[in-house]
Amino acid sequence: MSADSITAALLVIGDEILSGRTKDVNIGATAEFCTDLGIDLKQVRVVSDETDEIVEAINALRGRYTYVFTTGGIGPTHDDITADAVAKAFGVALPINDEARAMLETRWKQTGTEVNEARLRMARIPEGASLIVNSVSAAPGFRIGNVHVMAGVPIIMRAMLEAILPTLRTGKKVLSVTVKAAVGEGTVGGPLGALQELYPDVKMGSYPQMGNDKVMTELVLRSSDPVRLEEAAGKVRAMVAEAHQRAGVTPPDEVY
Amino acid sequence: MSADSITAALLVIGDEILSGRTKDVNIGATAEFCTDLGIDLKQVRVVSDETDEIVEAINALRGRYTYVFTTGGIGPTHDDITADAVAKAFGVALPINDEARAMLETRWKQTGTEVNEARLRMARIPEGASLIVNSVSAAPGFRIGNVHVMAGVPIIMRAMLEAILPTLRTGKKVLSVTVKAAVGEGTVGGPLGALQELYPDVKMGSYPQMGNDKVMTELVLRSSDPVRLEEAAGKVRAMVAEAHQRAGVTPPDEVY
Repeated sequence: MSADSITAALLVIGDEILSGRTKDVNIGATAEFCTDLGIDLKQVRVVSDETDEIVEAINALRGRYTYVFTTGGIGPTHDDITADAVAKAFGVALPINDEARAMLETRWKQTGTEVNEARLRMARIPEGASLIVNSVSAAPGFRIGNVHVMAGVPIIMRAMLEAILPTLRTGKKVLSVTVKAAVGEGTVGGPLGALQELYPDVKMGSYPQMGNDKVMTELVLRSSDPVRLEEAAGKVRAMVAEAHQRAGVTPPDEVY
Repeated sequence: MSADSITAALLVIGDEILSGRTKDVNIGATAEFCTDLGIDLKQVRVVSDETDEIVEAINALRGRYTYVFTTGGIGPTHDDITADAVAKAFGVALPINDEARAMLETRWKQTGTEVNEARLRMARIPEGASLIVNSVSAAPGFRIGNVHVMAGVPIIMRAMLEAILPTLRTGKKVLSVTVKAAVGEGTVGGPLGALQELYPDVKMGSYPQMGNDKVMTELVLRSSDPVRLEEAAGKVRAMVAEAHQRAGVTPPDEVY
């Protein structure tokens, strides 16, 4: 990893994920978003709706990675405590933000929604933060320091990722090549490990495919250097072809 | 949370999750598994295939929760380093385990699979650990201290969860009641917060449903005490009925 690599962590906040009631999809979406931008997502944490848990995670992650993204806990109910926790982590106040309030009130006027204390919770923004305005929800997220606080509802979360995209420093895009092998990963494991040592700058992963009629292993090569990647992929393809021949099996239809 | 509550953390290990290439399903499965057993899943972490990251996470989590579950990184290739990292975290050696080797060799004999160094990696088990034998894969997971090391392939992971189930201490099962409201969560947020203060032992969450034609909010109440849960649910149902009346909306079909 070069010194100027851009890294990130994702903090998913919500009891509903930890209870299994809601199946998270924001981890996968954020992972793809980061990969597309050449941002190296290094860690994900899921914590409950408890202030201390959130504060601890925010402070552990924000000093360590270029960016921290959070999802969840910015709605209008008592269990939405992410803004409180982020303000506490940064040691700043959490006043009603005039800009956020105006945005919400405009939407509420359009929809005939009553203004009340619960809804106004969504206008509370830590001092010094800037808003993350999005096209789906009138309730904004916010950015303070390197921490980006976003909604947990997937469609709003994705709109907020799009909104912050132009503000993020991006890294060298990581390219990948997948080589399919019709033998088990135990068969290709040894030679793949040897090739990994020859190409330390091309990260090689091996993923057995279960539940098929035929044995299938996907070997995935990742690098930001297209020349080295293609060179390594050529070696891996040759190694797999040899393994197929030795095992007397037909190679899989697609090598892509 | 009572002093004798049973807690857990899940550590998901694998670059393929952090790159977005593979979408994790083990978090949701583990969350449901824990909830069914009355085990309070308190935290999830996803880290990359790097020894230091895994060691740090294992040591941070194992002192803090009753159980730690890990998934991923116990296959036969060079990027499968979970056993190495766990051995390092516990400060023990990682020899070939005779029992694991015998299990693997029996399966390989049946299937005509060659024994090689890569495959024998799967028989390396930290000293002092006991095996987690499962019905799907001949490659065992293992348990050392309070840490349960399992496969990343979901079907094997679930078989391993079933295998360890009888060995786990279980808590009081947490029951839940869901009340559907045909108003936004900003409308019920205030009174729900007041009810939460009256019932600190019944955890109340609010989840807006997006993408429907109608506004819909699900209020989820959770408690291990069925009497208090039903009492609180009655109050929440009455509060929601009043909100429906005030808003002049038809209540949703199901209140379950």
